[in-house]
Amino acid sequence: MFVIACCVLGFFFVIMLYLGLEKEDKGTKEMVRLSSFIQQGAKTFLHEEYKSLSVFVILFTLILLYLDFRLAFSFLLGALFSAIAGNLGMRMSTSSNTKSAQAARSGLGRALKIAFSSGSIMGMTTVSLGLIGISLLYMVFGEPEVIFGYGFGASMIALFARVGGGIYTKAADIAADTVGKLERSMPEDDPRNPAVIADQVGDNVGDVAGMGSDLFESYVDAIIATMVMGAAVAGLGDFVAIPMLVSGLGILSSIIGYFFINLKLKRDVEKALDKCIYISTFLTALFSYLLTVYLGVEIEIFYAVLTGLVLGIIIGKSSEYYTSMDSKPTINIARESRAGAATNIISGLATGMESNIIPVIAIGAAMILSYNFAGIYGIGLAAIGMFAPLGTTLSIDSYGPTVDNAEGIAKMSGLKKEARKRCEVLDAVGNTTAAIGTGFAIGSAALASLALFSSYAYATRLSAISLLSPQVIVALFLGALLPFLFTSMTMRSVGKTASKMVHEARRQLKNKDILKGKKTPDYQRCIKISSDAALKEMILPGVLAIGSPLVVGILLGVEALGGLLAGTIATGLILAITLANAGGAWDNAKKYVEQGHLGGEGSFVHKSTIVGDTVGDPFKDTCGPSLDILLKLMSIIAIVFIPLFI
Amino acid sequence: MFVIACCVLGFFFVIMLYLGLEKEDKGTKEMVRLSSFIQQGAKTFLHEEYKSLSVFVILFTLILLYLDFRLAFSFLLGALFSAIAGNLGMRMSTSSNTKSAQAARSGLGRALKIAFSSGSIMGMTTVSLGLIGISLLYMVFGEPEVIFGYGFGASMIALFARVGGGIYTKAADIAADTVGKLERSMPEDDPRNPAVIADQVGDNVGDVAGMGSDLFESYVDAIIATMVMGAAVAGLGDFVAIPMLVSGLGILSSIIGYFFINLKLKRDVEKALDKCIYISTFLTALFSYLLTVYLGVEIEIFYAVLTGLVLGIIIGKSSEYYTSMDSKPTINIARESRAGAATNIISGLATGMESNIIPVIAIGAAMILSYNFAGIYGIGLAAIGMFAPLGTTLSIDSYGPTVDNAEGIAKMSGLKKEARKRCEVLDAVGNTTAAIGTGFAIGSAALASLALFSSYAYATRLSAISLLSPQVIVALFLGALLPFLFTSMTMRSVGKTASKMVHEARRQLKNKDILKGKKTPDYQRCIKISSDAALKEMILPGVLAIGSPLVVGILLGVEALGGLLAGTIATGLILAITLANAGGAWDNAKKYVEQGHLGGEGSFVHKSTIVGDTVGDPFKDTCGPSLDILLKLMSIIAIVFIPLFI
Repeated sequence: MFVIACCVLGFFFVIMLYLGLEKEDKGTKEMVRLSSFIQQGAKTFLHEEYKSLSVFVILFTLILLYLDFRLAFSFLLGALFSAIAGNLGMRMSTSSNTKSAQAARSGLGRALKIAFSSGSIMGMTTVSLGLIGISLLYMVFGEPEVIFGYGFGASMIALFARVGGGIYTKAADIAADTVGKLERSMPEDDPRNPAVIADQVGDNVGDVAGMGSDLFESYVDAIIATMVMGAAVAGLGDFVAIPMLVSGLGILSSIIGYFFINLKLKRDVEKALDKCIYISTFLTALFSYLLTVYLGVEIEIFYAVLTGLVLGIIIGKSSEYYTSMDSKPTINIARESRAGAATNIISGLATGMESNIIPVIAIGAAMILSYNFAGIYGIGLAAIGMFAPLGTTLSIDSYGPTVDNAEGIAKMSGLKKEARKRCEVLDAVGNTTAAIGTGFAIGSAALASLALFSSYAYATRLSAISLLSPQVIVALFLGALLPFLFTSMTMRSVGKTASKMVHEARRQLKNKDILKGKKTPDYQRCIKISSDAALKEMILPGVLAIGSPLVVGILLGVEALGGLLAGTIATGLILAITLANAGGAWDNAKKYVEQGHLGGEGSFVHKSTIVGDTVGDPFKDTCGPSLDILLKLMSIIAIVFIPLFI
Repeated sequence: MFVIACCVLGFFFVIMLYLGLEKEDKGTKEMVRLSSFIQQGAKTFLHEEYKSLSVFVILFTLILLYLDFRLAFSFLLGALFSAIAGNLGMRMSTSSNTKSAQAARSGLGRALKIAFSSGSIMGMTTVSLGLIGISLLYMVFGEPEVIFGYGFGASMIALFARVGGGIYTKAADIAADTVGKLERSMPEDDPRNPAVIADQVGDNVGDVAGMGSDLFESYVDAIIATMVMGAAVAGLGDFVAIPMLVSGLGILSSIIGYFFINLKLKRDVEKALDKCIYISTFLTALFSYLLTVYLGVEIEIFYAVLTGLVLGIIIGKSSEYYTSMDSKPTINIARESRAGAATNIISGLATGMESNIIPVIAIGAAMILSYNFAGIYGIGLAAIGMFAPLGTTLSIDSYGPTVDNAEGIAKMSGLKKEARKRCEVLDAVGNTTAAIGTGFAIGSAALASLALFSSYAYATRLSAISLLSPQVIVALFLGALLPFLFTSMTMRSVGKTASKMVHEARRQLKNKDILKGKKTPDYQRCIKISSDAALKEMILPGVLAIGSPLVVGILLGVEALGGLLAGTIATGLILAITLANAGGAWDNAKKYVEQGHLGGEGSFVHKSTIVGDTVGDPFKDTCGPSLDILLKLMSIIAIVFIPLFI
């Protein structure tokens, strides 16, 4: 009841934010017109997505009905709730962008607040919907294991939104840059560029809906897995309730944290956002401590949650160190680029690989610590701790695309220099928070998968998954192979889709009226290319993620399937961090040069850094984040389909 | 006795080849002069290497003496024999290059035969020395387990030769290209380029001594591990002898295979070499079958060996498909380069990642098959089967650097166009065999490590290495992390060393006499830079490889150490194949364009493919092959130091 109350409070908070935003000024007619293109594009994608999705959802509902109708029901609810959260988030961000741009005309603080409110609507809706779904299902079914269907439903949406969305956003980005900047020497966000709106839509599709559905899934997976482990350890009592309670308290903390964003906002946007995270984290820790005291359970429960909270901060800080513009690794990449594009690439890859040290060791240490605190249940609790302040984290992550769009609209609609500068400041921060958000999402996916892995072991009642069995070793090798194959596929998909859109944009620009800006380009055609291709290209990796645990489970058995999962989780985590941080570092190495270092814009060094940045685009926004989905989808499929393998 | 007879026969064969080569004409005075620079450079490196090595060898001999004097003795012998094989191979290849170039003046066949004979001396010395060492140690000690020291000794040499050599060769290559081709527009192999001799030396250091020591290690590791498993299964009898016997028969088969290289040599060098491999493989299979009949053991023993033989061919063919110039993936990379360097990079990486499918699935299938044939012993036998015709494989691999140098000498000493063309044909084949050789070496390292892993499990008497233990999972994560860190380090080392040499070469070229070709550049200074740096840069990755199993073993225990090894072997194999095949494919995509496709030399596409080729250089010749060492060194350290962890 308390948990549901927290969620309802979350909804009230969302409504309050929404009403606040509704009152904001949408700006000039031109701004509204541009924004409506973006909204229209987002709708096109959602429409296409739901069409394709419905086939898969119906298919799996039927299969699950055969196993257990409660699984099927949970599955449908998970898919529905995740879709609602993503839809709402994207609607908010695509409608708030003009408002934020308009507010930037008068000042920085107001523009930030609008963007952050829009992000918060997404963030809070995600966690409130995620948690209330679990609570309701638990109230109705009274058994945590069948709720895995809910996580499976969320996975299904995340697969489409994250993988498809990732392909969408980067294909559009690369096409817009290729045709606009490279071939026609247009500035960024030029309204004559036929791919420019697809690019803007892509930011929302990938970073709002994609990121949101990814974290929705991690969040609910971790809660369900920990509830199952709690039930395994101590039956249906406090231990099943604690994961939900801590998450509820996290929602409360996030709401309180929101109000601190106003307090002392001068020019330093980054610090304001950081503070917001620290406050929510601290409050979650405090509330969790009070909870353990109130329930009278072992204090170690609190320690395990605290381990996760600290872990979340460490992972974020590590991504920040490796990718932010003024840190050593990024500057080093810029320096190495003096010898050319090849050394830029080598240096970026080396940085990406190296950047695994802190998160991997931190996750390892957190696992061993939390296990020592509370056994296998403790590992789940650490994941819960990391996710508890997710409302805030996600608000900050979804703030990025809104300000990115705001900056685009400010440029395209020709706002005054001052307003545009303000938008640029907000956008620069958005880039950093995006990199941190990606790192956090990858770490979350790994932790959620580990929690799922533990409950898999419990559900199969295996006493060991031994690497001395050749089947397990072979499955481990196959598991380690999958992230590489998956990445190879998503990488190629981006390239293929981008080149289709380049052709279309080139075709349109042959029309002199469009080139001179007298006629609006047919933005919709480019949008349609991205939407169609994203959903088509997503099928092969999707089949790989869904099919491989089924094939290995059936052919090699449940023990080997455990080996497959372990191989995929370990390699997937590391490959994802490598890709995301290499991409982030390349991006900021380019920006570092653009700030005037090492020859500045247009220099040889700058050209070298552009190569790395372009390679890094699919790395950080498609391939890396898509691996999150692979890890979790495989794990949840393994759990849900255990009856097939025994 | 029979085994020792085979090895002695191998030595006689080597002496015969050597005497044959001694008679060959060394060519003009200029050719001899250039070749002597290369020989001198190789000696400089070996001298530096032995100096650094001796410290490590003495240190570990003392540590091993404390554990068991037999281990220490085996260790010393392994280090000594591996060093002799590498030294001899490099002496042969650096002295045969002029002879091959000289022979090319009269015809292709003779030039090929000289290069192949020089390669065969290396190949046959490696296998004969490797096997005779094991046989003698087994005769003296009568217990297979202490012979692991022999493998450890070989590891030590391989670490220096493969990792150090890899850094050496690519740093010199990149520096020579940067200063020569890019900055001064000199052609390849211009004698005015101060780094050109270091580059030529590097081919020998990396591809002869490095590759040789790597395979020497895999070869002896697999034999020893299988002997240990044989003893575990059936005591000290036939099962301990079979690995040695099959390897001895492999030497015999390789000698016979050599004589087939003469038969029908027209223009098709590649086919002639292929045929040689098929004949040795077929003979090994035949002899192994006769052996099982003669010994009266189960026919499944033969099947397990056969599995390995087939696996070796599959792995080679897969590398060939992904990297050869006229295959689809390579042409595809060249096509994608039309959009620029970034798409060239993305396409190459995607190809490298994808290229894991066949080898990983083939290794997995071979493991399960051979396990079904003969249990854990069968997995070892499969490795033995793969390695049995190593004499031939290694002869073909070491042939490459000789013809590469021959081509360089032909160019630098201004031989006639015809002779140079012939050298180019031989060199082109050498590039393909190098790519196949790298793939084979990686597969071998994985198989040898798996055999070591199995004997580790036996030696620790663990009943399970269970992924349900958090220590094991954390160790698995750390294990998966290590190949990425190791690669990051070797990648950076190449860059650092190359930039040092670039500075030196630039400095020398400021002297107008050198630039005009009136004065010979100071080649030795560049050689010294590579030698010193290679050995210095090798220390950190070396410490990582040696230190991490010790730290994990001591802190987390023997079971976790098993998890660490499994994580490293799985991820290391896949990352190594990715790097090697991406590098090979980039290289040949560039060559494809240079043949006149897509605009040909000097075009925009060509420039894009040069970026990929430069990135690929350290990938395929330093980072990928260095991972072989990581896998095996960690495994053998784990086995040798088990007493420390219990």
